[in-house]
Amino acid sequence: MPLKALALNATLKSSSSTEKSSTAHMLDLIAREFEKFDVITTTVRLADHNIKPGVTSDEGEGDEWPEIRRKILAADILVMGTPIWMGQPGSICKRALERMDAFLSEKDDAGRMVSYGRVAAVAVVGNEDGAHHVSAELYQALNDVGFTLPANAVAYWVGEAMGSVNFVDLKEVPDVVTNTISMLTRNTAHLAGLLKSSQYPGEEK
Amino acid sequence: MPLKALALNATLKSSSSTEKSSTAHMLDLIAREFEKFDVITTTVRLADHNIKPGVTSDEGEGDEWPEIRRKILAADILVMGTPIWMGQPGSICKRALERMDAFLSEKDDAGRMVSYGRVAAVAVVGNEDGAHHVSAELYQALNDVGFTLPANAVAYWVGEAMGSVNFVDLKEVPDVVTNTISMLTRNTAHLAGLLKSSQYPGEEK
Amino acid sequence: MPLKALALNATLKSSSSTEKSSTAHMLDLIAREFEKFDVITTTVRLADHNIKPGVTSDEGEGDEWPEIRRKILAADILVMGTPIWMGQPGSICKRALERMDAFLSEKDDAGRMVSYGRVAAVAVVGNEDGAHHVSAELYQALNDVGFTLPANAVAYWVGEAMGSVNFVDLKEVPDVVTNTISMLTRNTAHLAGLLKSSQYPGEEK
Amino acid sequence: MPLKALALNATLKSSSSTEKSSTAHMLDLIAREFEKFDVITTTVRLADHNIKPGVTSDEGEGDEWPEIRRKILAADILVMGTPIWMGQPGSICKRALERMDAFLSEKDDAGRMVSYGRVAAVAVVGNEDGAHHVSAELYQALNDVGFTLPANAVAYWVGEAMGSVNFVDLKEVPDVVTNTISMLTRNTAHLAGLLKSSQYPGEEK
Repeated sequence: MPLKALALNATLKSSSSTEKSSTAHMLDLIAREFEKFDVITTTVRLADHNIKPGVTSDEGEGDEWPEIRRKILAADILVMGTPIWMGQPGSICKRALERMDAFLSEKDDAGRMVSYGRVAAVAVVGNEDGAHHVSAELYQALNDVGFTLPANAVAYWVGEAMGSVNFVDLKEVPDVVTNTISMLTRNTAHLAGLLKSSQYPGEEK
Repeated sequence: MPLKALALNATLKSSSSTEKSSTAHMLDLIAREFEKFDVITTTVRLADHNIKPGVTSDEGEGDEWPEIRRKILAADILVMGTPIWMGQPGSICKRALERMDAFLSEKDDAGRMVSYGRVAAVAVVGNEDGAHHVSAELYQALNDVGFTLPANAVAYWVGEAMGSVNFVDLKEVPDVVTNTISMLTRNTAHLAGLLKSSQYPGEEK
Repeated sequence: MPLKALALNATLKSSSSTEKSSTAHMLDLIAREFEKFDVITTTVRLADHNIKPGVTSDEGEGDEWPEIRRKILAADILVMGTPIWMGQPGSICKRALERMDAFLSEKDDAGRMVSYGRVAAVAVVGNEDGAHHVSAELYQALNDVGFTLPANAVAYWVGEAMGSVNFVDLKEVPDVVTNTISMLTRNTAHLAGLLKSSQYPGEEK
Repeated sequence: MPLKALALNATLKSSSSTEKSSTAHMLDLIAREFEKFDVITTTVRLADHNIKPGVTSDEGEGDEWPEIRRKILAADILVMGTPIWMGQPGSICKRALERMDAFLSEKDDAGRMVSYGRVAAVAVVGNEDGAHHVSAELYQALNDVGFTLPANAVAYWVGEAMGSVNFVDLKEVPDVVTNTISMLTRNTAHLAGLLKSSQYPGEEK
């Protein structure tokens, strides 16, 4: 049975924007590579949805997070994709992470969060700087709420210092990025397969 | 003439929430102390406003950022107050910082951003951990977009590891917090006064 | 066959210090708990060794890193333990991470770093704040150089804001810390076992 | 009277290394530009000195920090220059910051740390990524121990993602870097002048 990945695109731009999303481009490359490992990827563009501020799984009327949360838990792999702004993760990425804070108290009888057994990877794009820090913050937040991180769990691109070129506008995807995507997808699929067939044991009763 | 401070409260809770905001409590303490140094503070609770995602100064219909931006530029001091979630700044704080990214290209003839000459300080509250990192990220973002940071520019409170008490529910404000607020307000007012009477020179023509 | 863990204690104090190391205390608790999962832990106190600055695996005469590196690669699990200073990882921890930067170019024929298949966890102690940020930086650095991170890969303790009590001086280990250590060791042992019997595949030829 | 700047070069390479230091190159550019603003710069290459681990101002026999500390306090401006390793500040930079932790308890009668009234700026170089995060960590650590940060307090260069070119090997200094250095030196000199003639007031008795 194929593994399922959910890719969250945290670009600040909604689908109706006339500007292309570099984050979408990176996530597309990852999704295509995942196919080689029998992983089927679904993507959600977060800016298209009303994700209310808060740290519970349902913030009431109009909140579209519950449906996204359902998709996260229906998948084996979560790929969090975010642009870099000011060297840091974007506000829409932060919003989604905040909502996953609720997993901390959503546990089964063995003390395992609902997210346990899932593997996370990260996609980061920016004009010039910030990819390592963004991956650090995402790793920590995702790990805190129960996700497992495979070796080399990030694919990223940034340009030279103070540059302004967008990843989506590069004529070619640089080889180093292609290699990284290959590594990320291979490792993520492998680890997700292992955990799917052998979930964390949880605490004894 | 008194100095003017604008305090942005980035709590995830709007004013209509029944829960008290610890960030509001910290900002109130700072505002009260500022009075001793002839600084008048106005507070804006960001969650009460529709701040659209983006990195320009006006993201179009319904965007309430332009009015907040106007208040930032009308003040001598910016106090950014944020709760900690997952050891990191909240998403509403990130949204406001992102919008200030626009200052990078809003410069006068001498190459100075519109924000130049203003002093920033930071207020951070959380249940257990993350204040230093939050201040680091805020310092960097605020400094990048033109703000000056006085010595000891942060007031914060967090509880013991994995605690769940809120700052606003403490019976008393701890002395160490009071001392920090005193230091922050004194230094901020002093530096804002200096820069108000002696703005950065900008580049020669 | 039991799994092997190597715990690196990055306290600033050498073994000859008269002060007790809180990091050592946390690592001891972890090592004891690891026994329940048939994991045997060896600890190295980094401050006792001459680890020369640099980013290669052997920085020449007098460098004691090569022996520590050998121990890292002989183990299935790496636990990096560090004190928090200024809300950030200590300089000795940073030194060790820097030396592991060499793994980036030490790959087998399938493009896998020498560190692949190993699982890392993190132990962090401080007086008052910084655990999340320290774990974020360590996760990112360790993941970049090939380590895999199990769900909830950190055990930490910090006191209340601006406190000065040391973890090693607490009368009792708080229950929340005990629970975290239990979760960390259980998850780490489980994942290390999975990867030991099913290493990442690496790239096809 | 001219202002005095102390530049600390935290490269991992000592002066006897045959490799050129990119950090030294950036600091040289800053020192030259400082001359235009009547600021005289002295540089210390930290790797040439035995800076013992610890958080006091004198760690005993053989410790060369006390002399560096004396130079910091004799200057009006501190420029901390560091390479980026793994997207983070180098271990030698961290060591120096840790030693400045001692300033927290070295206060005058008005509660002002010995470092008060001094201005700090930051120089960061790396092959590909990490400048914003490094400046964030340095701003926070330096601000915590009493330094004031002028607007746009960082000069940096990094190459494209996963690149390996060194700043010191670029044929020309990019214009954006030159502009940043100009801004940094101008702002730093201006603010240091203001604070030299008008120190923070400290607490009333």
